[in-house]
Amino acid sequence: SRVIKLALIPGDGIGPEVVVEAEKVLDAVTADAGVTFDKTRFSLGAARYLETGDTLTDEDLAAIKGQDAIILGAVGGLPGDPRLKDANIERGLLLKLRFELDHYVNLRPSKLYPGAPGPLAEPGEIDFLVVREGTEGPYVGNGGSIRTGTPHEVANETSVNTAFGIERVVRYAFAQAERRRKRLTLVHKTNVLVHAGGMWKRIVDAVASEHPGVAVDYLHVDAATIFLVTNPGRFDVIVTDNLFGDILTDLAGAVTGGIGLAASGNINPDGAFPSMFEPVHGSAPDIAGQQKADPTAAILSVALLLDHLGLGAQAQRVTRAVEEDIANRGGTARTTAQVGDAIAARVQA
Amino acid sequence: SRVIKLALIPGDGIGPEVVVEAEKVLDAVTADAGVTFDKTRFSLGAARYLETGDTLTDEDLAAIKGQDAIILGAVGGLPGDPRLKDANIERGLLLKLRFELDHYVNLRPSKLYPGAPGPLAEPGEIDFLVVREGTEGPYVGNGGSIRTGTPHEVANETSVNTAFGIERVVRYAFAQAERRRKRLTLVHKTNVLVHAGGMWKRIVDAVASEHPGVAVDYLHVDAATIFLVTNPGRFDVIVTDNLFGDILTDLAGAVTGGIGLAASGNINPDGAFPSMFEPVHGSAPDIAGQQKADPTAAILSVALLLDHLGLGAQAQRVTRAVEEDIANRGGTARTTAQVGDAIAARVQA
Ligand SMILES: CC(C)[C@H](C(=O)O)[C@@H](O)C(=O)O
Ligand SMILES: CC(C)[C@H](C(=O)O)[C@@H](O)C(=O)O
Repeated sequence: SRVIKLALIPGDGIGPEVVVEAEKVLDAVTADAGVTFDKTRFSLGAARYLETGDTLTDEDLAAIKGQDAIILGAVGGLPGDPRLKDANIERGLLLKLRFELDHYVNLRPSKLYPGAPGPLAEPGEIDFLVVREGTEGPYVGNGGSIRTGTPHEVANETSVNTAFGIERVVRYAFAQAERRRKRLTLVHKTNVLVHAGGMWKRIVDAVASEHPGVAVDYLHVDAATIFLVTNPGRFDVIVTDNLFGDILTDLAGAVTGGIGLAASGNINPDGAFPSMFEPVHGSAPDIAGQQKADPTAAILSVALLLDHLGLGAQAQRVTRAVEEDIANRGGTARTTAQVGDAIAARVQA
Repeated sequence: SRVIKLALIPGDGIGPEVVVEAEKVLDAVTADAGVTFDKTRFSLGAARYLETGDTLTDEDLAAIKGQDAIILGAVGGLPGDPRLKDANIERGLLLKLRFELDHYVNLRPSKLYPGAPGPLAEPGEIDFLVVREGTEGPYVGNGGSIRTGTPHEVANETSVNTAFGIERVVRYAFAQAERRRKRLTLVHKTNVLVHAGGMWKRIVDAVASEHPGVAVDYLHVDAATIFLVTNPGRFDVIVTDNLFGDILTDLAGAVTGGIGLAASGNINPDGAFPSMFEPVHGSAPDIAGQQKADPTAAILSVALLLDHLGLGAQAQRVTRAVEEDIANRGGTARTTAQVGDAIAARVQA
């Protein structure tokens, strides 16, 4: 049978709890799929940093690069922990993995499942996919400051954008739109960020000419947030830069039932590096270890993983099981494990 | 009587229509206030550009600098108009005014008035103030590209941030919080934009120590969008950078009845230059000249103008008149002029 080398990075806070449930569902749905997961656990995150001073060593990175895919829970310690003051776990671990593994597609589907709670009075049908660029833009870490801490400090942050980087993610987004409702919206801020925005616009226009069946439009990021709350049904595929994608997908998560349900894939479509699947939520240290976290986002990330591995039927079973679970949630509070058990039972049914 | 030199920049699209109503209300509420407005109209915007090729000449700018205050409607032509391809009216006119007139405070109140429509199922009470920095950040125009239009293009955009620029707007925000519910939230993305974000954080912490009565917290911009739709009542004063403020205030407008109600002031608190008051909405060329635009945002911007001029009682009368008008709107469609007439009648009552 096909052996898939799977890295597990449970991380901090609620990460380990939700990853246990993700594994449970993964194991259940692939029991009869003719695949074996060869799992390696990596202890990474704030806890590891506090123990050893390491965020991500070269050995860690090399070992992770040798895997076929990654499941990550969440990383990050207690906000304001003075021992973490000089550690930027986000930049040093999470973003480092995305950049080193060339995860140029950050895939974030948003679907409002019947029964899911949400803040909108009349949400309508919501089912869109944000294709967020993952390796460029304001996330490149190209910043610095002078006279730091003085009244004369100047701090710059440079967003770096390349035609190479934009074209590949735009092509991916169009391919997704072809398989969906054939609508693609570019979100940027071309009237202010004229150089980066201009390049995004030109590349989208160029690739659009190869996809005459896809209807393309453009929104400024500020206007896009309005539509996300007034008419989210207008969106099919959104393609956008790293920072705008970060902002839009948290908002999208909120309008589709909360980030307890929001899944994501950090994907290297070329297959040169393992792709990484993670819930959009953070480590939520305030509720860690209490079995209060909703593992659904992690479980839906398993569906994205399965899709990526070519196990589309299994991916659909996971999505359907989650959909059924959400439809039947009602008001009863369940533990993290109970939610995982319920969904695992449904994928086997 | 006190003479106030007032520049009127009606602009494009629905701009002229809403500015007429703003003037109507301004005239009505100040009829007995012992002030005279010496008005000068400036023809600026896409229409002027198409006629003359000018966006903002040195003479325009000098004349505007000589005013005491400015009311601006909206600027911008038809999206996609090929004749405007090389004109960036936003950068060349609107942002140029904000930067040249050192409008370092971009003040954007968000209040959900009883009767106002909104997308949230349970909005609760919403009443907060975004203090958006107006002269720095990613808006400085510090970008460029090489190999433009080729597959090897690289486009950079640099966000420039100074301690001087941040401290002055942070002080302004704290002063507002002292006069309100004494809560201040810094919004940034410190975990990614570590240099700019770190400086914002340090300056807010330093100024906070002078305001022990103000409760201060911090949110990443992505998380802030979640709270704006799930718990907007948690906010009192938000202080944030130019780009994050742009995004948050459109979303804030949407959750408090739409940008047809969202007012703003571009303020130079030092009084070195005239401040400029404008609705947050754009020129909406699709409905221009049809008396369909809601002038309420422009009229609420007049309230901000009056406050700025020290005419607090008149400002309150405008706000109260708008509040009453909104409460009594019901479902009847009214023309732009009818809304202006109704509010003007109420300020005199
Ligand atoms: C933790 C943080 C660096 C990260 C991001 O900004 O990308 C997170 O918000 C996300 O969206 O995955
Ligand atoms: C028109 C545009 C340049 C402007 C901005 O981005 O500031 C607008 O969106 C606003 O919020 O006033």
